[in-house]
Amino acid sequence: MKTTAVIMAGGRGERFWPKSRNSRPKQFLSLTADGKTMIQKTVKRLLPLVNMEDIFIVTNAAYTDLVLAQLPGIPKENILAEPCARNTAPCIAFAAAVIGRKYDAAMMLVLPSDHLIGYEDIYVNTLRKAIRAAEEGSNLVTIGITPAYPETGYGYINFGREAGDTYEVERFVEKPDLPTAKEYLASGKYLWNSGMFVWKVSSIMSNMQKLMPDIYDGAVRIGEAYGKPEFNAVLVKEFTAFRSESVDFGIMEHADNIYTIPGSFGWDDVGSWLAVERINETDDDRNYFEGDVISVGSERTTICGGKRLIAAVGVEDIIIVDTDDALLVCSKNSTQDVKKVIAQLREQGRNDLV
Amino acid sequence: MKTTAVIMAGGRGERFWPKSRNSRPKQFLSLTADGKTMIQKTVKRLLPLVNMEDIFIVTNAAYTDLVLAQLPGIPKENILAEPCARNTAPCIAFAAAVIGRKYDAAMMLVLPSDHLIGYEDIYVNTLRKAIRAAEEGSNLVTIGITPAYPETGYGYINFGREAGDTYEVERFVEKPDLPTAKEYLASGKYLWNSGMFVWKVSSIMSNMQKLMPDIYDGAVRIGEAYGKPEFNAVLVKEFTAFRSESVDFGIMEHADNIYTIPGSFGWDDVGSWLAVERINETDDDRNYFEGDVISVGSERTTICGGKRLIAAVGVEDIIIVDTDDALLVCSKNSTQDVKKVIAQLREQGRNDLV
Repeated sequence: MKTTAVIMAGGRGERFWPKSRNSRPKQFLSLTADGKTMIQKTVKRLLPLVNMEDIFIVTNAAYTDLVLAQLPGIPKENILAEPCARNTAPCIAFAAAVIGRKYDAAMMLVLPSDHLIGYEDIYVNTLRKAIRAAEEGSNLVTIGITPAYPETGYGYINFGREAGDTYEVERFVEKPDLPTAKEYLASGKYLWNSGMFVWKVSSIMSNMQKLMPDIYDGAVRIGEAYGKPEFNAVLVKEFTAFRSESVDFGIMEHADNIYTIPGSFGWDDVGSWLAVERINETDDDRNYFEGDVISVGSERTTICGGKRLIAAVGVEDIIIVDTDDALLVCSKNSTQDVKKVIAQLREQGRNDLV
Repeated sequence: MKTTAVIMAGGRGERFWPKSRNSRPKQFLSLTADGKTMIQKTVKRLLPLVNMEDIFIVTNAAYTDLVLAQLPGIPKENILAEPCARNTAPCIAFAAAVIGRKYDAAMMLVLPSDHLIGYEDIYVNTLRKAIRAAEEGSNLVTIGITPAYPETGYGYINFGREAGDTYEVERFVEKPDLPTAKEYLASGKYLWNSGMFVWKVSSIMSNMQKLMPDIYDGAVRIGEAYGKPEFNAVLVKEFTAFRSESVDFGIMEHADNIYTIPGSFGWDDVGSWLAVERINETDDDRNYFEGDVISVGSERTTICGGKRLIAAVGVEDIIIVDTDDALLVCSKNSTQDVKKVIAQLREQGRNDLV
């Protein structure tokens, strides 16, 4: 069976402002010293499993040119441009319908475009096991991440009985508070929900038909128009009519035959500027400096420089991000508040900076 | 007797990098919200005492154009351009010789160009008293600053017997350690040495003739050439031959008839970036922001912005200074280390940034 991959790249992540903007969200940025962008790394690590021509990128229409520029090996017709944002369920339905149109039977890996993986061999092996498990019946397989600590910013997967390489999923749970997260860890029965899925096109389509028939019907009409002159008109009409729905709520929480495979491959969702020191090599004072930086006695400081010299003198636990038109200086305790800067800029009508 | 003022503006202060550069040192910067530069404020506060045409600016030849641009009211011939830096004694000797050539008898106020005064009326009254005291004999009068706390970064003046509005000076002492500074304060007999002097031209010239005859002789030759075609050649020849000497070591520590007047007029030597929050109005969170700034929960932070937006998120006790080609982010505990950045830049041969 043909293995295909769908990379979800429509996000507008605000947590990497001022480097990320509406016009260039996180997945199109490089946050590592190798200079590769998140989406480039996502594609590259899939190549042992999937041919370039079987990788589909679902993104916002505004980012089509960015995808083409950063991923010249991906066929243009594989860039599936959403006319608007409708969360993951319509995104996956669109991709499944297109792939279903192209191949009679296909395996479909669904992956975020803006995560990092430390151990790519283990990652590939884990996906291979997931593919094998997804070949059975209409199994839906999700990759869970073995938790390293009681994170309150992720959803969790509660798993039950072992089944081959996988475990049966009991339920998906939303972001817990800290005591609950600690209980989850202590129980040994919870994994982080990473948003990575593996299933046959036919499996996800039959579940959609049953659990969200409105989105299924629209997606089928989009798939039927794929490659035809009327495709764009159909896409705009059907897609804008979709309600916003996540695949977790819309499918995973209600479907049968859900399995999870625990993954331990150095997964990082790169959720805020704090991630930069995790995913890069730091110096003896636990600093990470990129660009033209002079430090005098600074410690545990992350600097992503732009064109100018940045001198950091005696600062600790600070993140500095420089761009041509905006500079961020942020305490490591306050990275979640970067969104408030964007909110203020929007209020002030300064959309050029957002 | 004609009252003249000599403003010493040759300094290359490095502590306000990156705003201050070799090409534009501190006295030519504005560090206050009113937009006036330090030297402009120095001149303005003297006008109740001295006419514009009797104000002399001693500066480095490289800064003549800056002085002309910032102080259009000062006659061009009053800008005394040192061909090189030789500390305060040659600077004052040069000015005294020129003024002595211009006026038969003149009072001379000698003032730094890069300090701030909070209470200008009290300042002017203090200088008036100093002028009266300097009219007697060959008295040398220095303005002492009533200490607010045991500062270890200033020299001190130990005074003795009261004499009219002044006190006799027992001795000048160098920067003390903290226990000594505390003793000075407790004794009630010490003032900060502010580097402001008042004397007749004849008084300082006779003291120079006695205590530093080499510099005196050179200065007399410069004074004789003032206004003549050979002036520049004589100035370069004589001035470059001067040894470096401060007026404190060269004159004040050895002369007789030294008096001090205690001043309490909100003096600030604006010695580092820490001064900016002292000399400006801060907000409720004790921040001082200049330029295009968005703050989310920042406290006790000083931002001197440039052309770009600066977002400060959750930072505390930090100083941020932005310019077109260099950015400083500095802990308030480390402002003295800004010099180390300049040292590194010099080592790297990056003189464009110094």
